[in-house]
Amino acid sequence: MSDKVRIALDAMGGDHGPAVVVAGAELARQRHPACEFLFFGNASQIAPLVDARPKLKAVSQTVHTDIAVRMEDKPSQALRSGRWKSSMWLAIDAVKKGDADMAVSAGNTGALMAMSKFDLKTLPGIERPAIAALWPTLRGESIVLDVGATIGADAEHLVDLAVMGAATARILFGLPRPSVGLLNIGVEEAKGLEPVREAGRILREEDLPGLDYRGFVEGDDIGRGKVDVVVTEGFAGNIALKTAEGTARQLAEYLKGAMSSSLSARVGYLFARAAFARLRERMDPRRANGGVFLGLNGIVIKSHGGADAEGFAAAIELGHGVVCDELLAKIRAALEHFHNLPQQAVRGAAS
Amino acid sequence: MSDKVRIALDAMGGDHGPAVVVAGAELARQRHPACEFLFFGNASQIAPLVDARPKLKAVSQTVHTDIAVRMEDKPSQALRSGRWKSSMWLAIDAVKKGDADMAVSAGNTGALMAMSKFDLKTLPGIERPAIAALWPTLRGESIVLDVGATIGADAEHLVDLAVMGAATARILFGLPRPSVGLLNIGVEEAKGLEPVREAGRILREEDLPGLDYRGFVEGDDIGRGKVDVVVTEGFAGNIALKTAEGTARQLAEYLKGAMSSSLSARVGYLFARAAFARLRERMDPRRANGGVFLGLNGIVIKSHGGADAEGFAAAIELGHGVVCDELLAKIRAALEHFHNLPQQAVRGAAS
Repeated sequence: MSDKVRIALDAMGGDHGPAVVVAGAELARQRHPACEFLFFGNASQIAPLVDARPKLKAVSQTVHTDIAVRMEDKPSQALRSGRWKSSMWLAIDAVKKGDADMAVSAGNTGALMAMSKFDLKTLPGIERPAIAALWPTLRGESIVLDVGATIGADAEHLVDLAVMGAATARILFGLPRPSVGLLNIGVEEAKGLEPVREAGRILREEDLPGLDYRGFVEGDDIGRGKVDVVVTEGFAGNIALKTAEGTARQLAEYLKGAMSSSLSARVGYLFARAAFARLRERMDPRRANGGVFLGLNGIVIKSHGGADAEGFAAAIELGHGVVCDELLAKIRAALEHFHNLPQQAVRGAAS
Repeated sequence: MSDKVRIALDAMGGDHGPAVVVAGAELARQRHPACEFLFFGNASQIAPLVDARPKLKAVSQTVHTDIAVRMEDKPSQALRSGRWKSSMWLAIDAVKKGDADMAVSAGNTGALMAMSKFDLKTLPGIERPAIAALWPTLRGESIVLDVGATIGADAEHLVDLAVMGAATARILFGLPRPSVGLLNIGVEEAKGLEPVREAGRILREEDLPGLDYRGFVEGDDIGRGKVDVVVTEGFAGNIALKTAEGTARQLAEYLKGAMSSSLSARVGYLFARAAFARLRERMDPRRANGGVFLGLNGIVIKSHGGADAEGFAAAIELGHGVVCDELLAKIRAALEHFHNLPQQAVRGAAS
């Protein structure tokens, strides 16, 4: 891989379409000048936006398509009507063909996952991919997965998530042996869903290399940064992620209200405004925008549908980091190790 | 019911035992002087704490038992070893016998639910009880249920939760027809778990009286206060609740850090300290402590295991409000209505 990172963008995805995608690409380009961009979507909408940014234009190409996946499409519908030709498909397919190192879309998550799986295929031994989110914590950042790729999980899938999440943490955080916890509704062994308890047993007994299994964690342990990698199935993970974002927005509103509630509070705000600016930045859910699809033969990043340009740029930059660090090759090696364990142990455990 | 509210307390529950329970009772007594308390637990630990508070002592009795349910006990173990005699059981049984109007415990949630169900029995038509939490939002407060009583839910159980949650919202918030949403990982009809989609269909088609069904909501809609009642099964609900609490604590830490980051920030803090005090109060997860067990023939309140005296008092006060408003009779009436609907419709729907 050269230093140049080639990025395929679904320009029609998300609530705001090309306006946010092109503006986000420009922000990412300013911060990572070695990027090149491939925009897929309606050329007549994309062209004026790119033309208005000459430096971006110099490193971009646009591939026209009229077809866009809609937010309300079921994955199966999207696959039927959008395969081979939609902007989302073409962005993913650019990764498959080797025309791009990664793809980013703010479109329909289910469709993006279905198309990515169909086109890129999963890594050996992985049946169901996952979305990993970077979660800001009191100790730095953690990886939480799965935050919505698939619903429900058996014990072996949860162990796969632990292995993939730990590989990602080793790379993104530079940790030799990241700590891993299973999200549950109590830390006692007896509590929670059967697959979660069973996955806990496998992780404890197998003692996999490159990860330090710490047992169950609860919802409030995520923000505390108790472990580097939090493993959960996609329904609960998505709800945890969105609830945390909602709470952050809610408290930012409270803070705004408090700081304008009286004259002395407003004076206080003036004195403290540099501190508030830093605080606002830390509380900004846009900074953490972007989920990495794990378990596929290629790198696909999902941005929030509602992301603005800053948020979309964060998603691009997340992918950029993952590409530069050769995440994929490292995950493949870690999974090979787990799946080559004596099958007796794993199968006996999961049955 | 007289104006006097008689409260049974499991004095041995929670991380701090009698010290927090007795101190919390005293705080609740100061705010609601018509309360009477029954403490169940180790009398030699409870007596000095009560003796030190003469006004509390005047309205309290203690029933001694050596047996306490441990936090790590499975519900079935707790039931085997703690039935008839543990402090938790005796507090619940006081409600059954009519010696108390409500019971509060900060002990093991699973054990409390199992014992409550075994002793008080569920309301007609309800198989699985639920825990409802009061959730502070940007628009006031919402009720979220189930936050951890039972794991997994079929469509009919989710509809029961909607009916019970709406009855609770009518009483606690004084709303004639509270809005209700089903927690899901997307607002589109096609998304999410099958039982959630099916429950959505029933709620839409039955158009139950006393509740205004608004469709699916996502995690970030909770704090926004998009609906008065958020319905979910207990695993995801518990994770949402704890994640929100963790995020609130995390942001409070960020705020503290920001306000001491520079001299001018510290000066600003001095000017704004009254506003900060109000903000701290709004962000305080203790204020929302206490889950109401719904679906039982009696009122049981679960406090957080880690609650301090202020938190435990909040749990008592929540129960106090529920008792004064005769929640139970109202829920029973609402459920009767739903379960007396033409069974064809409901069964056909849920099968």
